[in-house]
Amino acid sequence: MKRENWFFESPLPQTKFEVKVGFKLKRKIFSSKSPYQKIEIFDTFPLGRILVLDGILQLSQKYEFIYHEMIAHLALFSHPCPQNVLIIGGGDGGALREVLRHPIKEVFLAEIDKKVLEVSKKFLPFLKLKNSLRDKRTKVLFENGVQTVKNFKNFFDVIIVDSPDPAGAALPLFQKKFYQNCYLALRERGVFITQSGNFFQQISEIRMISKRLKEIFGEIEISHFFTPDYQGADFSLTIAGKEINLEIDLEELKKRTKKIKNLKYYSPQVHLASFVLPLLYQKIVSR
Amino acid sequence: MKRENWFFESPLPQTKFEVKVGFKLKRKIFSSKSPYQKIEIFDTFPLGRILVLDGILQLSQKYEFIYHEMIAHLALFSHPCPQNVLIIGGGDGGALREVLRHPIKEVFLAEIDKKVLEVSKKFLPFLKLKNSLRDKRTKVLFENGVQTVKNFKNFFDVIIVDSPDPAGAALPLFQKKFYQNCYLALRERGVFITQSGNFFQQISEIRMISKRLKEIFGEIEISHFFTPDYQGADFSLTIAGKEINLEIDLEELKKRTKKIKNLKYYSPQVHLASFVLPLLYQKIVSR
Repeated sequence: MKRENWFFESPLPQTKFEVKVGFKLKRKIFSSKSPYQKIEIFDTFPLGRILVLDGILQLSQKYEFIYHEMIAHLALFSHPCPQNVLIIGGGDGGALREVLRHPIKEVFLAEIDKKVLEVSKKFLPFLKLKNSLRDKRTKVLFENGVQTVKNFKNFFDVIIVDSPDPAGAALPLFQKKFYQNCYLALRERGVFITQSGNFFQQISEIRMISKRLKEIFGEIEISHFFTPDYQGADFSLTIAGKEINLEIDLEELKKRTKKIKNLKYYSPQVHLASFVLPLLYQKIVSR
Repeated sequence: MKRENWFFESPLPQTKFEVKVGFKLKRKIFSSKSPYQKIEIFDTFPLGRILVLDGILQLSQKYEFIYHEMIAHLALFSHPCPQNVLIIGGGDGGALREVLRHPIKEVFLAEIDKKVLEVSKKFLPFLKLKNSLRDKRTKVLFENGVQTVKNFKNFFDVIIVDSPDPAGAALPLFQKKFYQNCYLALRERGVFITQSGNFFQQISEIRMISKRLKEIFGEIEISHFFTPDYQGADFSLTIAGKEINLEIDLEELKKRTKKIKNLKYYSPQVHLASFVLPLLYQKIVSR
């Protein structure tokens, strides 16, 4: 067994390096450094093609739909009628593809790293980024999302933070100041969602995010689900509303979901079940 | 980074070796061969002490309660009033500890490998096996569970199959003949539960188990949840009833659950949510 035939993730930022996950490689497809990060593409046996940023797996051909369906549909279906949407990060186009399946008016994609879009268009066709960029509702901003939310007031119905983990360029996307500006950039009844790490190795991150969001938005909800893409762990998304009750009417949700064809992971029942936190997780978040 | 400082699991039986999961080791505690399997104990940084059989992680000090609470309480709370319980495998005592928290009359533990009990008593005190063996309701049978279920007819209210994956000595515990004998060993309204592998690497196993159980029991339910102990993947338990509706009354379940103190993972809400299968999993099971 040769070492070079396996891809091992780098340790997650701000975690102790105590767990390793490796995927059997077919071959390396691409490697480059942008001004912001190292970007790599590999073909693997268990996951198909994967996108890796600074050593951390971001998505896989075989399972990307899990995370992208969850982050997009949890947020958009929590709003009664989303029209203006902002995605921060997400330059790969996965969340964008899912957002565009809703009858929205426009979606801004604020991605700091142009290179991520280029690489995704070229090497990750399953993300349908070319199609999404041709869609007239899509507006791309090559800028730091921290700046973007300062430029809008009472504008967005939904803000989706689809960023890497809190380190380097992504660190400001987890700070209280940023969350405050998101709150201000949202319209009344606006919905905010962010990736918040996994419940196994990123406990302090989940706790920090939920604490900061509670201070600004009041109530929050945490969704958890498993995807093979993220270091073998139960992954979390944290959702918060601006003067809106996040409780869902299942029958209403079923009607709206029917209009989106060919979902592969998300369902109204999965939406609700994902918010049920095991006692262990409740304890993590409440401390 | 020295290779010997990490514990890497062997590939799961009957899967392609395409994913590796490793845990940073403190030290090896114990290693021995029984007539049935290799038994090892390690101290790790992320999981605490772990039990490893034939290279596969069975449980960890930090997270064993997840699997053991789920397999025991899902089964026992699906029965209106369980009195006679059989655990097949489970020589470590984790499932036994949880079963004994219910007001049952007696529980048989059919474990083929005496050595697993000895090792657990000595090195895994958190499983409370010594206590459980002193409990007058506990009856240990050092025999193959395949034989045990042949010796009882219309006797058990609950049968729990807490076995390793389908390979070697555990293989007959996944065969149709065994499931038929379990059905016969159960009383009317009896509940059967078995571990059925993970939804990432053991798809054909889950499919095979659900197909065989459906042929004998009629309806089945599949529960899924994440535990860091099992190869970074969403794990499944398959449950089936003998002339009993597995649907749960939440209010009734809440009352019964209150009598069990200090649960760490399981709750009535988690019970119900764990049966909600994402579309991806529904597709896997229905094919």
